[in-house]
Amino acid sequence: MARIVMKFGGTSVADIARIRNVARHVKREVDCGHDVAVVVSAMAGKTNELVAWTREASPMHDAREYDAVVASGEQVTAGLLAISLQNMGVNARSWLGWQIPIRTDNAHGAARIQEIDGSFLIKRFGEGQVAVIAGFQGLSPDNRISTLGRGGSDTSAVAIAAAVKADRCDIYTDVDGVYTTDPRMEPKARRLDRITFEEMLEMASLGSKVLQVRSVELAMVHKVRTFVRSSFVEPDAPGMDDFLNPPGTLICDEDEIVEQQVVTGIAYAKDEAQISLRRVADRPGVAAGIFGPLAEAGINVDMIVQNISEDGKFTDMTFTVPSGDVAKALSVLEKVRDTIGYDVIQHDEGMAKVSVIGIGMRSHAGVAATAFEALSEKGINIRAITTSEIKISILIDGPYTELAVRTLHSVYDLDKS
Amino acid sequence: MARIVMKFGGTSVADIARIRNVARHVKREVDCGHDVAVVVSAMAGKTNELVAWTREASPMHDAREYDAVVASGEQVTAGLLAISLQNMGVNARSWLGWQIPIRTDNAHGAARIQEIDGSFLIKRFGEGQVAVIAGFQGLSPDNRISTLGRGGSDTSAVAIAAAVKADRCDIYTDVDGVYTTDPRMEPKARRLDRITFEEMLEMASLGSKVLQVRSVELAMVHKVRTFVRSSFVEPDAPGMDDFLNPPGTLICDEDEIVEQQVVTGIAYAKDEAQISLRRVADRPGVAAGIFGPLAEAGINVDMIVQNISEDGKFTDMTFTVPSGDVAKALSVLEKVRDTIGYDVIQHDEGMAKVSVIGIGMRSHAGVAATAFEALSEKGINIRAITTSEIKISILIDGPYTELAVRTLHSVYDLDKS
Repeated sequence: MARIVMKFGGTSVADIARIRNVARHVKREVDCGHDVAVVVSAMAGKTNELVAWTREASPMHDAREYDAVVASGEQVTAGLLAISLQNMGVNARSWLGWQIPIRTDNAHGAARIQEIDGSFLIKRFGEGQVAVIAGFQGLSPDNRISTLGRGGSDTSAVAIAAAVKADRCDIYTDVDGVYTTDPRMEPKARRLDRITFEEMLEMASLGSKVLQVRSVELAMVHKVRTFVRSSFVEPDAPGMDDFLNPPGTLICDEDEIVEQQVVTGIAYAKDEAQISLRRVADRPGVAAGIFGPLAEAGINVDMIVQNISEDGKFTDMTFTVPSGDVAKALSVLEKVRDTIGYDVIQHDEGMAKVSVIGIGMRSHAGVAATAFEALSEKGINIRAITTSEIKISILIDGPYTELAVRTLHSVYDLDKS
Repeated sequence: MARIVMKFGGTSVADIARIRNVARHVKREVDCGHDVAVVVSAMAGKTNELVAWTREASPMHDAREYDAVVASGEQVTAGLLAISLQNMGVNARSWLGWQIPIRTDNAHGAARIQEIDGSFLIKRFGEGQVAVIAGFQGLSPDNRISTLGRGGSDTSAVAIAAAVKADRCDIYTDVDGVYTTDPRMEPKARRLDRITFEEMLEMASLGSKVLQVRSVELAMVHKVRTFVRSSFVEPDAPGMDDFLNPPGTLICDEDEIVEQQVVTGIAYAKDEAQISLRRVADRPGVAAGIFGPLAEAGINVDMIVQNISEDGKFTDMTFTVPSGDVAKALSVLEKVRDTIGYDVIQHDEGMAKVSVIGIGMRSHAGVAATAFEALSEKGINIRAITTSEIKISILIDGPYTELAVRTLHSVYDLDKS
């Protein structure tokens, strides 16, 4: 017997037939004798509809009212799933954010969870009751509904799992796990059985959209074993009730992974643009002078490369932004030209960032060199490089993305099981 | 300066354009310097959609979950109206049932309001803030969302008005007031300027569907002056801001009505069926033996007529039920035939009940006689009669409904202003 949090996204609860299918997944776990909490998103399309209404009512709107409107979607799903479970003879009740309560800060529209009192839920587990929890929502300090930002139900689920000390948080989604790379890009991509929190964080933030980044951060901090699995497999398919080893990908602490791969996966992000400022004065505060105004304008700067200046007076500063933000970035930089003092701005759109990720590279030399050599052999030009302890990111020309991903996937033997 | 509660139903908030129109009505009152609370229903069609989902999930469902699902409709409208008001520069915030709180009993799905704490709302009035309140919903003793039953937003509005000691509760609807009779039946029907609570209660329960019956009861108990007016008039049309005398019908205490009419209106209810039990034993307990089992079967018995028995041994018992319940009623009566002991059952469907309503008839003799004579002159056969202090109800054959309504409307001079 274990304690499990199960989370189902919008496409898994898109209509009553699918909600009933979700109920069957839940019943399977209940029948195994587990304590179960279920976190649900709004029915597919509902959140978009509600958001569109708030925009139609006023382009600029009070985030507290936005939250009251938009959180209603999850409320509906929670009630409907509780009804469906009861209809199958499962003891269940719905919980809204304010009822548990899931306390958040005051940042309506993108609130952060501050505290969850799990005691009510745990008491009900003792009575054999399944908790069906509306995801994405909480209660702000002023006693109003808050929401956690798009995709926030993943974060709700992981936070609930931490609060009730769950053995595992199962994230049911429309894919059956985390892959070594995007299977649409490289058909030889394999599903990973396990991946560390740190690696998943890099995968998630690099555009592998399986999980909301914040939920992975939270899982890492609270060491919540998080299981990514498919909601479209038949609930009673073989192995689905295998608590220790069901089909999917377990995101866990590195000490749970016996044989660590040097490289775990290849991620990519398209539609990057590169902006270079030539002959920037090489003095303290210049980076702040550039990136401060960009941040204020809401532009998400990614890779930053600063070359060592040759003469100690001037340097070049190169960075990437999403292609859609180039015009805005250039206009911001034009305005601060006098304060920064640069010669020319160059920019190139249609770039892509390819990243090699693996916790094992901390203890293995030569991982980066292998990547550079492999790309060079295929004639792929490297525009910029940034590295972290467990990741190497390489900026290349967009049209080479697929070739680069497949080359790197192959050079690190990721296509071999 | 006054304090006003305004209530808008589903058709008045059916889309964002109409919600914006509602906001203009609210702004008009705010600009007059009034304290304003607004109670809103779900957007037209939303409640039906939500109810259908709960039924699809399970025909028999937990009323607490039903409430969580269905109450979301009003939550959405409240947020959207608050946003629209803010967009017009009006200080406003939404309030959900649990936030005020509106405390109800535990009868989920058809809960009754037990207590409303108006202090938060009154404090915000002092800060010049409009309260936008989700109608139809409250907080049950177990800290869950409750709903008041269909049409419950009228009741919410009147209860809020009582709690904040409002000068008036304005019910905006798709008609511009209460009429002497149904204008579709009698084009000469006139809008009433004023009507007493007692008369409105009879009008409402007799099928004049302007207001939920419970809201009128509540208004009567708490003496909440309730104003029925149209939401489809231009918000800045002449007279709309006349606090003492805007266009519409004021439901009020009888001492506010200087010149009372003897008869105020003619109501009718179609699709009534008449059931007669012949030669029922005339002994104590026989009425309970008949109507007890019918009530248990959920059959709504309306008019009951018992003739005085000629021989002291047997009597006839006649009553009406909605046509749709006839088969069920006959089956119930068949089962209790041995205990009651009657000779034959007769039943006739396609009846109609026409009612003459007026608080003035308490002090005027001959009102009933006038009705009987007028109907007789038109050759309309009277099947049964029941009376109360302020109402005479007459059962007739259905096809004569329109003739009877127009005859009575004319004989009491209701078509003359």
